[in-house]
Amino acid sequence: MSRITPLSGFPEFLPSQRAAELAVIDSLRETFELHGFASLETRAVEPMEQLLSKGETSKEVYVLRRLQETQGDTDTGLGLHFDLTVPLARYVLENAGKLEFPLRRYAIQRCWRGERPQEGRYREFTQADIDIIGRDELSFDADVEVTEVMAAALSRLPLPAVTLQINNRKLIEGFYTGLGAQDPATVIRVVDKLDKVGPDGVRVQLRTEAGLDDAQVDLCLALAQITGTDVSFAGEVRALGVSHPLLDEGLRDLVRAIAAAAPFATERFRVVADLRIARGLDYYTGTVFEGRMKTHGDIAICAGGRYDALASDGRITYPGVGISLGVTRVLAPLIGRGLLDGSRSVPSAVLVALPTEEDRPRAREVARALRERGIATEVAPIAAKFGRQIRHADRRGIPYVWFPGGPGRADSVKDIRSGEQVDADPDAWRPPTADLRPQIVTKETHP
Amino acid sequence: MSRITPLSGFPEFLPSQRAAELAVIDSLRETFELHGFASLETRAVEPMEQLLSKGETSKEVYVLRRLQETQGDTDTGLGLHFDLTVPLARYVLENAGKLEFPLRRYAIQRCWRGERPQEGRYREFTQADIDIIGRDELSFDADVEVTEVMAAALSRLPLPAVTLQINNRKLIEGFYTGLGAQDPATVIRVVDKLDKVGPDGVRVQLRTEAGLDDAQVDLCLALAQITGTDVSFAGEVRALGVSHPLLDEGLRDLVRAIAAAAPFATERFRVVADLRIARGLDYYTGTVFEGRMKTHGDIAICAGGRYDALASDGRITYPGVGISLGVTRVLAPLIGRGLLDGSRSVPSAVLVALPTEEDRPRAREVARALRERGIATEVAPIAAKFGRQIRHADRRGIPYVWFPGGPGRADSVKDIRSGEQVDADPDAWRPPTADLRPQIVTKETHP
Repeated sequence: MSRITPLSGFPEFLPSQRAAELAVIDSLRETFELHGFASLETRAVEPMEQLLSKGETSKEVYVLRRLQETQGDTDTGLGLHFDLTVPLARYVLENAGKLEFPLRRYAIQRCWRGERPQEGRYREFTQADIDIIGRDELSFDADVEVTEVMAAALSRLPLPAVTLQINNRKLIEGFYTGLGAQDPATVIRVVDKLDKVGPDGVRVQLRTEAGLDDAQVDLCLALAQITGTDVSFAGEVRALGVSHPLLDEGLRDLVRAIAAAAPFATERFRVVADLRIARGLDYYTGTVFEGRMKTHGDIAICAGGRYDALASDGRITYPGVGISLGVTRVLAPLIGRGLLDGSRSVPSAVLVALPTEEDRPRAREVARALRERGIATEVAPIAAKFGRQIRHADRRGIPYVWFPGGPGRADSVKDIRSGEQVDADPDAWRPPTADLRPQIVTKETHP
Repeated sequence: MSRITPLSGFPEFLPSQRAAELAVIDSLRETFELHGFASLETRAVEPMEQLLSKGETSKEVYVLRRLQETQGDTDTGLGLHFDLTVPLARYVLENAGKLEFPLRRYAIQRCWRGERPQEGRYREFTQADIDIIGRDELSFDADVEVTEVMAAALSRLPLPAVTLQINNRKLIEGFYTGLGAQDPATVIRVVDKLDKVGPDGVRVQLRTEAGLDDAQVDLCLALAQITGTDVSFAGEVRALGVSHPLLDEGLRDLVRAIAAAAPFATERFRVVADLRIARGLDYYTGTVFEGRMKTHGDIAICAGGRYDALASDGRITYPGVGISLGVTRVLAPLIGRGLLDGSRSVPSAVLVALPTEEDRPRAREVARALRERGIATEVAPIAAKFGRQIRHADRRGIPYVWFPGGPGRADSVKDIRSGEQVDADPDAWRPPTADLRPQIVTKETHP
């Protein structure tokens, strides 16, 4: 075996950490499925021409080469997908005749970006995407629904405070057009740099690149400053005095999205209209999402929006709306800093102790009885002293140790956290629900 | 969007097919976890020197190249893993100080083989592995346990008949040594070709390559013919009159493994001692497994065994035993032939119908109430005629359509399979358990 060194950008977890990741993924999956989203997984690879046909991220791709290919070009023409949207668009076109629309799907899969090794950059990561795809048409209710579902999914998880910012491309495009901008796309591109270059920088570029006058620039910056956790932001937009049919449409849609998500708002999960969000050069045409988490800094953890043409075969167009959550982006830093972990390193709620090696068949019977009632159980690997068997459980976080009885002596089970030991019947005893599976443990109380 | 063609060797499923795959994976996972096996996932890539350090399969690897790398060698030195054992060995060495041994883990992950496109060959596939890894030592109970767990996992699934063949390398090595073979490894290699070259071919090679005489060859072929579903096979081995301490040890171990798996045996899931199985050139040192399924032919669907040194850092050795199930190998042909499918294409058990668009808020409330009690529910996308909404449910296999009532009229729910419709309260109604999730549907009654 050659030397072993971790690979930067390819995060891996220890068992208890993986238990926490799995609990998060299970929780996401449960929410998605309760809302009727179906799991659809695509292969890990796409033809390079598919990968390169979309957006700016497409440059950083891992291309596959067959090691044993010796004739001519060794490339396969295949690359690893860098997101789950490009594969979904391809899958929809490939299977359109066999799918029912609107198609509601989720995917929790790994993606890869062929970046140089670099601190804090993931080269392999897990994304959790939900999407609704229509055929020719897709009602705005779909935008409302993906907002609601992602809000429901995130608000039930014990994560640091999340803010889901929502905006609408029609709203800003209509606003910029309504105030007289000749090239609203340029205005969008410039305003999108607000965080990077600041208001003064944006002001200069709006004048030089978009040809706006001071009054128009003021309006753009005023719009970009509007945020709101309820629908009252709409009044602030109206108060700027710009009007345009596209603005009206976008504003109505954004109000609906914010109102729908309001019931999920908590201190730790906010949904905010943020009129600055544009999602850069992506091909979004209506709603746009950007989720941020207050953790080590303030990081983007989800993104998405509405495409009027997620896919098209020339005859039929498939509009779609979706949100993608960066599971690894959220979890890897928290887990790495010890702020999030699993309550134990194994699924087992019970370790059946072995008084002697001869008791193994009885111990296996106890384990079988407990498992039949859904209680994850393992048998001690060897008939060591009980103290050592209890330490075996303790080191893995297994909460209960089961002691098989004998002639005239009942079985008993000990909660090794409290030390309490009670007589118990393997066909009847049951731990508290919270002990059945590893739980997510947070090391900080989030505000 | 460029032309779309399926990629041979990269199977993808339609929604109802994926529901069946997911139900199988969930069932496997549940069995593994009930037995205290912890999920551990490794990254998809390994350094090429790791991938090339093991076995014969290592030749067909996809090597990764960064698309944007322009300086010098564009290879990253990384390849996609072709199994889950090589990554596990690396993971154990990398994290040994932080792991508790014996380590019981499962992994259900994709693997890749850089093969030429070819009918029936998977280039991307899902494996489900269970392993127990010790530190310096690992009791034979671990071999018994992985047999038991894989037997439990497979016997509860509605799959075609499976036979898990078990043998023991010590048994055959001790037998060949005991009968006087100078080079038992060569005998193992030759006997392993029995299926390929037949008894006469093996007979010739045992004489020429292993230097055995006719009596010795007869004994080898007699041993290879022994099989048995219970421990009586041991008597047949003894009756051949060969003796050796290693044979005794291997025979005792194999008897234990067969006896442990016996309670799981059914018509559709057999566990068989098969003294011919050797698992070729792999580094197994004790128990060896080979699982076969009677489907389109008789295909190998799982494999595994005991390594006395799964991993070693020079000071400490980590023995391991594991079995790997080819999830894609089992499911893709069955699904492709329509013999296995999901009962519906969505998780939803209920579609809430929309009498009018104005009823959407009420419909959403009904959906929320049902979801809160774990019933996957979706709301109809538009307030079309009820007939069309019922067809929407029918085409997806959703069994129930919910009709919100109105002033003085109760809600009602209709089982669209039977047509039966009853008044219902969203806070109390519950479908039969079998309707809660998509079920696995088999199109053939397996014997």
